[in-house]
Amino acid sequence: MTRRTGRRPGNPDTREAILDAARAAFAERGFDAASIRGIAATAGVDPALVHHYFGSKDQLFLAAMNFPVDPGQMVPRVLAGDREGVGERLVRTFLSIWDSPAGSAGVALLRSAVSNEWTARLLREFITTQVLRRVLDQLDVDPAELPLRGSLVATQLIGLAMIRHVVRMEPVASADPETLVAAIGPTIQRYVTGELPT
Amino acid sequence: MTRRTGRRPGNPDTREAILDAARAAFAERGFDAASIRGIAATAGVDPALVHHYFGSKDQLFLAAMNFPVDPGQMVPRVLAGDREGVGERLVRTFLSIWDSPAGSAGVALLRSAVSNEWTARLLREFITTQVLRRVLDQLDVDPAELPLRGSLVATQLIGLAMIRHVVRMEPVASADPETLVAAIGPTIQRYVTGELPT
Repeated sequence: MTRRTGRRPGNPDTREAILDAARAAFAERGFDAASIRGIAATAGVDPALVHHYFGSKDQLFLAAMNFPVDPGQMVPRVLAGDREGVGERLVRTFLSIWDSPAGSAGVALLRSAVSNEWTARLLREFITTQVLRRVLDQLDVDPAELPLRGSLVATQLIGLAMIRHVVRMEPVASADPETLVAAIGPTIQRYVTGELPT
Repeated sequence: MTRRTGRRPGNPDTREAILDAARAAFAERGFDAASIRGIAATAGVDPALVHHYFGSKDQLFLAAMNFPVDPGQMVPRVLAGDREGVGERLVRTFLSIWDSPAGSAGVALLRSAVSNEWTARLLREFITTQVLRRVLDQLDVDPAELPLRGSLVATQLIGLAMIRHVVRMEPVASADPETLVAAIGPTIQRYVTGELPT
Protein backbone atom coordinates (compact mmCIF):
# COMPACT_ATOMS: atom_id res chain seq x y z
CA MET A 1 0.00 0.00 0.00
CA THR A 2 1.49 3.32 -1.04
CA ARG A 3 1.45 6.24 1.34
CA ARG A 4 -0.78 9.13 0.24
CA THR A 5 0.39 12.69 0.55
CA GLY A 6 -2.18 15.06 -1.06
CA ARG A 7 -4.93 16.82 0.89
CA ARG A 8 -7.68 14.70 -0.54
CA PRO A 9 -7.67 11.12 0.70
CA GLY A 10 -9.70 8.32 -0.76
CA ASN A 11 -10.91 6.85 -3.98
CA PRO A 12 -11.88 9.68 -6.38
CA ASP A 13 -15.01 7.82 -7.52
CA THR A 14 -16.13 7.34 -3.93
CA ARG A 15 -15.44 11.01 -3.14
CA GLU A 16 -17.48 12.11 -6.14
CA ALA A 17 -20.32 9.75 -5.26
CA ILE A 18 -20.46 11.26 -1.78
CA LEU A 19 -20.34 14.82 -3.12
CA ASP A 20 -23.11 14.06 -5.64
CA ALA A 21 -25.26 12.60 -2.90
CA ALA A 22 -24.51 15.59 -0.68
CA ARG A 23 -25.50 18.13 -3.35
CA ALA A 24 -28.75 16.26 -3.94
CA ALA A 25 -29.52 16.08 -0.24
CA PHE A 26 -28.67 19.72 0.54
CA ALA A 27 -30.66 20.97 -2.46
CA GLU A 28 -33.69 18.73 -1.93
CA ARG A 29 -33.97 18.65 1.84
CA GLY A 30 -32.04 21.74 2.90
CA PHE A 31 -28.91 21.89 5.02
CA ASP A 32 -30.59 21.31 8.36
CA ALA A 33 -32.65 18.29 7.31
CA ALA A 34 -29.90 16.61 5.30
CA SER A 35 -27.93 14.02 7.29
CA ILE A 36 -24.50 12.49 6.88
CA ARG A 37 -26.18 9.12 7.41
CA GLY A 38 -28.66 9.68 4.57
CA ILE A 39 -25.95 11.02 2.25
CA ALA A 40 -23.76 8.00 2.99
CA ALA A 41 -26.66 5.65 2.26
CA THR A 42 -27.32 7.32 -1.11
CA ALA A 43 -23.63 7.09 -1.98
CA GLY A 44 -23.50 3.46 -0.81
CA VAL A 45 -20.77 4.02 1.78
CA ASP A 46 -20.43 3.92 5.53
CA PRO A 47 -21.17 7.23 7.35
CA ALA A 48 -17.76 6.97 9.03
CA LEU A 49 -16.14 7.19 5.60
CA VAL A 50 -17.97 10.46 4.90
CA HIS A 51 -16.65 11.89 8.18
CA HIS A 52 -13.21 10.54 7.37
CA TYR A 53 -13.11 12.19 3.95
CA PHE A 54 -14.86 15.47 4.67
CA GLY A 55 -15.12 16.03 8.43
CA SER A 56 -18.27 17.79 9.64
CA LYS A 57 -21.53 18.41 7.78
CA ASP A 58 -20.47 22.06 7.38
CA GLN A 59 -17.22 20.97 5.77
CA LEU A 60 -19.01 18.50 3.51
CA PHE A 61 -21.31 21.31 2.38
CA LEU A 62 -18.32 23.54 1.53
CA ALA A 63 -16.75 20.70 -0.45
CA ALA A 64 -20.06 20.00 -2.24
CA MET A 65 -20.31 23.69 -3.18
CA ASN A 66 -16.67 23.63 -4.30
CA PHE A 67 -16.20 26.68 -2.12
CA PRO A 68 -12.56 27.56 -1.44
CA VAL A 69 -13.11 29.64 1.69
CA ASP A 70 -14.55 28.50 4.99
CA PRO A 71 -17.06 31.13 6.12
CA GLY A 72 -16.65 29.77 9.64
CA GLN A 73 -13.18 31.29 9.70
CA MET A 74 -14.47 34.63 8.44
CA VAL A 75 -17.20 35.11 10.99
CA PRO A 76 -14.85 35.95 13.88
CA ARG A 77 -13.43 38.81 11.77
CA VAL A 78 -16.91 40.20 11.27
CA LEU A 79 -17.88 39.84 14.92
CA ALA A 80 -14.61 41.20 16.36
CA GLY A 81 -15.40 44.76 17.43
CA ASP A 82 -18.39 46.85 18.36
CA ARG A 83 -21.91 46.17 17.23
CA GLU A 84 -22.07 49.46 15.34
CA GLY A 85 -19.19 48.39 13.09
CA VAL A 86 -20.58 45.04 12.00
CA GLY A 87 -21.91 46.43 8.68
CA GLU A 88 -18.54 47.81 7.61
CA ARG A 89 -16.69 44.70 8.76
CA LEU A 90 -19.08 42.42 6.88
CA VAL A 91 -18.57 44.38 3.64
CA ARG A 92 -14.79 44.48 4.19
CA THR A 93 -14.59 40.73 4.80
CA PHE A 94 -16.91 39.98 1.86
CA LEU A 95 -14.76 42.08 -0.48
CA SER A 96 -11.54 40.54 0.78
CA ILE A 97 -12.84 37.12 -0.31
CA TRP A 98 -14.33 38.22 -3.63
CA ASP A 99 -11.28 40.30 -4.57
CA SER A 100 -8.96 37.34 -3.81
CA PRO A 101 -8.33 34.38 -6.14
CA ALA A 102 -11.21 32.65 -4.33
CA GLY A 103 -13.56 35.17 -5.96
CA SER A 104 -13.52 33.28 -9.25
CA ALA A 105 -15.19 30.37 -7.49
CA GLY A 106 -17.84 32.79 -6.31
CA VAL A 107 -18.45 34.02 -9.84
CA ALA A 108 -18.71 30.41 -11.02
CA LEU A 109 -21.23 29.78 -8.26
CA LEU A 110 -23.34 32.80 -9.26
CA ARG A 111 -23.22 31.68 -12.91
CA SER A 112 -24.39 28.24 -11.97
CA ALA A 113 -27.08 29.51 -9.58
CA VAL A 114 -28.80 31.71 -12.15
CA SER A 115 -28.99 28.97 -14.77
CA ASN A 116 -29.75 26.04 -12.51
CA GLU A 117 -32.56 25.85 -9.95
CA TRP A 118 -30.65 23.21 -8.04
CA THR A 119 -27.56 25.33 -7.57
CA ALA A 120 -29.80 28.27 -6.66
CA ARG A 121 -31.21 26.16 -3.82
CA LEU A 122 -27.71 25.17 -2.71
CA LEU A 123 -26.62 28.80 -2.79
CA ARG A 124 -29.64 29.84 -0.75
CA GLU A 125 -28.88 27.18 1.87
CA PHE A 126 -25.23 28.16 1.84
CA ILE A 127 -25.84 31.87 2.39
CA THR A 128 -28.43 31.21 5.05
CA THR A 129 -26.75 28.50 7.11
CA GLN A 130 -23.05 29.14 6.55
CA VAL A 131 -22.88 32.90 6.49
CA LEU A 132 -25.90 34.83 7.73
CA ARG A 133 -27.00 32.57 10.53
CA ARG A 134 -23.50 32.44 11.99
CA VAL A 135 -23.20 36.20 12.01
CA LEU A 136 -26.72 37.10 13.09
CA ASP A 137 -26.83 34.43 15.80
CA GLN A 138 -23.97 36.18 17.55
CA LEU A 139 -25.65 39.57 17.55
CA ASP A 140 -28.44 40.50 19.88
CA VAL A 141 -31.21 40.41 17.27
CA ASP A 142 -34.84 39.32 17.67
CA PRO A 143 -34.87 35.76 16.28
CA ALA A 144 -38.20 36.43 14.58
CA GLU A 145 -36.50 39.14 12.53
CA LEU A 146 -33.47 37.07 11.52
CA PRO A 147 -34.84 35.77 8.20
CA LEU A 148 -35.83 39.21 6.89
CA ARG A 149 -32.60 40.85 8.12
CA GLY A 150 -30.57 38.02 6.62
CA SER A 151 -32.19 38.09 3.22
CA LEU A 152 -31.97 41.89 3.05
CA VAL A 153 -28.23 41.62 3.75
CA ALA A 154 -28.09 39.00 1.00
CA THR A 155 -29.74 41.37 -1.53
CA GLN A 156 -27.04 43.99 -0.99
CA LEU A 157 -24.07 41.62 -0.90
CA ILE A 158 -25.04 39.46 -3.88
CA GLY A 159 -25.74 42.64 -5.84
CA LEU A 160 -22.33 44.03 -4.89
CA ALA A 161 -20.71 40.82 -6.19
CA MET A 162 -22.78 40.98 -9.38
CA ILE A 163 -21.96 44.61 -10.20
CA ARG A 164 -18.28 44.45 -9.17
CA HIS A 165 -17.34 41.02 -10.56
CA VAL A 166 -19.92 39.92 -13.15
CA VAL A 167 -21.51 42.97 -14.80
CA ARG A 168 -18.38 45.00 -13.94
CA MET A 169 -20.04 48.39 -13.86
CA GLU A 170 -17.73 51.29 -13.07
CA PRO A 171 -16.76 52.80 -10.73
CA VAL A 172 -17.89 50.01 -8.37
CA ALA A 173 -15.99 47.44 -10.45
CA SER A 174 -12.58 48.95 -9.71
CA ALA A 175 -13.28 51.07 -6.64
CA ASP A 176 -10.95 50.85 -3.67
CA PRO A 177 -12.48 48.37 -1.19
CA GLU A 178 -12.59 50.98 1.57
CA THR A 179 -14.71 53.28 -0.62
CA LEU A 180 -17.25 50.50 -0.92
CA VAL A 181 -16.99 49.70 2.79
CA ALA A 182 -17.82 53.34 3.59
CA ALA A 183 -20.66 53.50 1.05
CA ILE A 184 -22.30 50.11 1.60
CA GLY A 185 -21.38 49.40 5.25
CA PRO A 186 -24.20 51.63 6.59
CA THR A 187 -26.72 49.74 4.43
CA ILE A 188 -25.69 46.40 5.93
CA GLN A 189 -25.63 47.94 9.40
CA ARG A 190 -29.22 49.13 9.00
CA TYR A 191 -30.36 45.72 7.73
CA VAL A 192 -28.65 43.98 10.65
CA THR A 193 -29.41 46.27 13.60
CA GLY A 194 -31.67 49.08 12.36
CA GLU A 195 -35.44 49.55 12.39
CA LEU A 196 -37.30 47.22 10.08
CA PRO A 197 -40.78 47.63 8.57
CA THR A 198 -43.28 45.51 10.47
CA MET B 1 -48.86 43.64 -52.18
CA THR B 2 -50.65 42.41 -49.05
CA ARG B 3 -51.46 44.75 -46.21
CA ARG B 4 -49.52 44.01 -43.01
CA THR B 5 -51.20 44.10 -39.65
CA GLY B 6 -48.87 42.89 -36.80
CA ARG B 7 -46.71 45.21 -34.72
CA ARG B 8 -43.47 44.13 -36.35
CA PRO B 9 -43.12 45.31 -39.92
CA GLY B 10 -40.47 44.13 -42.34
CA ASN B 11 -38.62 41.09 -43.50
CA PRO B 12 -37.75 38.92 -40.46
CA ASP B 13 -34.24 38.25 -41.80
CA THR B 14 -33.60 41.96 -42.22
CA ARG B 15 -34.94 42.69 -38.73
CA GLU B 16 -32.68 40.02 -37.24
CA ALA B 17 -29.67 41.30 -39.18
CA ILE B 18 -30.28 44.78 -37.80
CA LEU B 19 -30.74 43.48 -34.23
CA ASP B 20 -27.55 41.39 -34.48
CA ALA B 21 -25.62 44.41 -35.73
CA ALA B 22 -27.14 46.54 -32.95
CA ARG B 23 -26.16 44.07 -30.20
CA ALA B 24 -22.61 43.94 -31.54
CA ALA B 25 -22.36 47.74 -31.75
CA PHE B 26 -23.86 48.42 -28.30
CA ALA B 27 -21.68 45.77 -26.64
CA GLU B 28 -18.44 46.71 -28.43
CA ARG B 29 -18.72 50.49 -28.62
CA GLY B 30 -21.21 51.28 -25.88
CA PHE B 31 -24.60 52.92 -26.28
CA ASP B 32 -23.35 56.48 -26.74
CA ALA B 33 -20.73 55.70 -29.37
CA ALA B 34 -22.87 53.26 -31.36
CA SER B 35 -24.70 54.90 -34.28
CA ILE B 36 -27.77 53.96 -36.28
CA ARG B 37 -25.71 54.69 -39.39
CA GLY B 38 -22.96 52.26 -38.37
CA ILE B 39 -25.46 49.58 -37.36
CA ALA B 40 -27.26 49.97 -40.69
CA ALA B 41 -23.95 49.64 -42.56
CA THR B 42 -23.07 46.43 -40.70
CA ALA B 43 -26.52 45.01 -41.43
CA GLY B 44 -26.27 46.09 -45.08
CA VAL B 45 -29.40 48.26 -45.03
CA ASP B 46 -30.28 51.91 -45.30
CA PRO B 47 -30.32 53.85 -41.99
CA ALA B 48 -33.85 55.00 -42.81
CA LEU B 49 -34.96 51.37 -42.70
CA VAL B 50 -33.56 51.00 -39.18
CA HIS B 51 -35.57 54.04 -38.07
CA HIS B 52 -38.61 52.73 -39.89
CA TYR B 53 -38.44 49.34 -38.16
CA PHE B 54 -37.33 50.37 -34.68
CA GLY B 55 -37.69 54.11 -34.21
CA SER B 56 -35.06 55.82 -32.04
CA LYS B 57 -31.69 54.49 -30.91
CA ASP B 58 -33.22 53.98 -27.43
CA GLN B 59 -36.00 51.88 -28.92
CA LEU B 60 -33.55 49.90 -31.04
CA PHE B 61 -31.57 49.16 -27.87
CA LEU B 62 -34.69 47.91 -26.06
CA ALA B 63 -35.51 45.68 -29.05
CA ALA B 64 -31.92 44.40 -29.17
CA MET B 65 -32.10 43.55 -25.45
CA ASN B 66 -35.48 41.92 -26.01
CA PHE B 67 -36.72 44.04 -23.13
CA PRO B 68 -40.49 44.17 -22.80
CA VAL B 69 -40.75 47.38 -20.79
CA ASP B 70 -39.65 50.85 -21.84
CA PRO B 71 -37.77 52.38 -18.91
CA GLY B 72 -38.47 55.78 -20.46
CA GLN B 73 -42.09 55.33 -19.47
CA MET B 74 -41.15 54.33 -15.92
CA VAL B 75 -38.92 57.27 -15.13
CA PRO B 76 -41.77 59.78 -14.75
CA ARG B 77 -43.28 57.53 -12.05
CA VAL B 78 -40.01 57.61 -10.15
CA LEU B 79 -39.55 61.34 -10.50
CA ALA B 80 -43.15 62.31 -9.68
CA GLY B 81 -43.05 63.57 -6.11
CA ASP B 82 -40.58 64.98 -3.65
CA ARG B 83 -36.85 64.36 -3.77
CA GLU B 84 -36.93 62.57 -0.41
CA GLY B 85 -39.26 59.91 -1.80
CA VAL B 86 -37.24 58.97 -4.87
CA GLY B 87 -35.66 55.92 -3.18
CA GLU B 88 -38.98 54.37 -2.25
CA ARG B 89 -40.51 55.19 -5.63
CA LEU B 90 -37.56 53.63 -7.47
CA VAL B 91 -37.88 50.39 -5.48
CA ARG B 92 -41.68 50.38 -5.95
CA THR B 93 -41.39 50.88 -9.71
CA PHE B 94 -38.59 48.32 -10.01
CA LEU B 95 -40.66 45.72 -8.15
CA SER B 96 -43.78 46.46 -10.20
CA ILE B 97 -41.84 45.53 -13.34
CA TRP B 98 -40.05 42.49 -11.90
CA ASP B 99 -43.20 41.14 -10.25
CA SER B 100 -45.15 41.48 -13.53
CA PRO B 101 -45.00 39.04 -16.47
CA ALA B 102 -42.19 41.22 -17.83
CA GLY B 103 -40.02 40.01 -14.95
CA SER B 104 -39.31 36.71 -16.68
CA ALA B 105 -37.50 38.64 -19.42
CA GLY B 106 -35.44 40.26 -16.68
CA VAL B 107 -34.50 36.88 -15.23
CA ALA B 108 -33.54 35.69 -18.71
CA LEU B 109 -31.38 38.79 -19.09
CA LEU B 110 -29.62 38.16 -15.76
CA ARG B 111 -29.03 34.54 -16.72
CA SER B 112 -27.52 35.55 -20.00
CA ALA B 113 -25.41 38.34 -18.45
CA VAL B 114 -23.69 36.09 -15.93
CA SER B 115 -22.72 33.49 -18.51
CA ASN B 116 -21.86 35.79 -21.38
CA GLU B 117 -19.46 38.73 -21.26
CA TRP B 118 -21.21 40.30 -24.22
CA THR B 119 -24.61 40.34 -22.59
CA ALA B 120 -23.00 41.62 -19.40
CA ARG B 121 -21.72 44.61 -21.37
CA LEU B 122 -25.14 45.16 -22.91
CA LEU B 123 -26.75 44.97 -19.48
CA ARG B 124 -24.24 47.46 -18.08
CA GLU B 125 -24.97 49.88 -20.92
CA PHE B 126 -28.68 49.31 -20.48
CA ILE B 127 -28.74 50.01 -16.75
CA THR B 128 -26.49 53.02 -17.13
CA THR B 129 -28.02 54.76 -20.13
CA GLN B 130 -31.66 53.66 -20.03
CA VAL B 131 -32.37 53.64 -16.32
CA LEU B 132 -29.90 55.36 -14.02
CA ARG B 133 -28.89 58.24 -16.23
CA ARG B 134 -32.52 59.14 -16.91
CA VAL B 135 -33.37 59.21 -13.23
CA LEU B 136 -30.23 60.83 -11.88
CA ASP B 137 -30.11 63.46 -14.62
CA GLN B 138 -33.42 64.80 -13.36
CA LEU B 139 -32.27 65.12 -9.77
CA ASP B 140 -30.01 67.85 -8.54
CA VAL B 141 -26.92 65.68 -8.12
CA ASP B 142 -23.26 66.61 -8.69
CA PRO B 143 -22.51 65.19 -12.17
CA ALA B 144 -19.09 64.00 -10.96
CA GLU B 145 -20.86 61.76 -8.43
CA LEU B 146 -23.37 60.28 -10.86
CA PRO B 147 -21.34 57.18 -11.83
CA LEU B 148 -20.71 56.11 -8.23
CA ARG B 149 -24.27 56.86 -7.14
CA GLY B 150 -25.63 55.04 -10.17
CA SER B 151 -23.56 51.92 -9.72
CA LEU B 152 -24.32 51.79 -5.98
CA VAL B 153 -28.03 51.91 -6.82
CA ALA B 154 -27.38 49.11 -9.32
CA THR B 155 -25.76 46.91 -6.65
CA GLN B 156 -28.87 47.09 -4.47
CA LEU B 157 -31.45 46.70 -7.25
CA ILE B 158 -29.74 43.86 -9.12
CA GLY B 159 -29.23 42.09 -5.79
CA LEU B 160 -32.92 42.53 -4.95
CA ALA B 161 -33.84 40.95 -8.30
CA MET B 162 -31.37 38.11 -7.72
CA ILE B 163 -32.59 37.24 -4.21
CA ARG B 164 -36.31 37.70 -4.97
CA HIS B 165 -36.52 36.14 -8.43
CA VAL B 166 -33.46 33.94 -9.04
CA VAL B 167 -32.12 32.60 -5.72
CA ARG B 168 -35.62 33.02 -4.21
CA MET B 169 -34.51 33.41 -0.61
CA GLU B 170 -37.32 33.90 1.90
CA PRO B 171 -38.82 36.10 3.16
CA VAL B 172 -37.64 38.55 0.45
CA ALA B 173 -38.83 36.15 -2.28
CA SER B 174 -42.48 36.41 -1.31
CA ALA B 175 -42.56 39.60 0.78
CA ASP B 176 -45.24 42.16 0.10
CA PRO B 177 -43.74 44.81 -2.24
CA GLU B 178 -44.42 47.59 0.27
CA THR B 179 -42.39 45.78 2.93
CA LEU B 180 -39.43 45.81 0.56
CA VAL B 181 -40.11 49.43 -0.42
CA ALA B 182 -39.95 50.40 3.25
CA ALA B 183 -36.83 48.32 3.94
CA ILE B 184 -34.80 49.06 0.80
CA GLY B 185 -36.11 52.50 -0.18
CA PRO B 186 -33.89 54.30 2.38
CA THR B 187 -30.83 52.51 0.96
CA ILE B 188 -31.55 53.77 -2.55
CA GLN B 189 -32.34 57.21 -1.17
CA ARG B 190 -28.95 57.40 0.53
CA TYR B 191 -27.14 56.23 -2.62
CA VAL B 192 -28.97 58.83 -4.72
CA THR B 193 -29.00 61.91 -2.46
CA GLY B 194 -27.02 61.06 0.70
CA GLU B 195 -23.43 61.66 1.72
CA LEU B 196 -20.90 59.61 -0.23
CA PRO B 197 -17.35 58.65 0.75
CA THR B 198 -14.85 60.85 -1.08
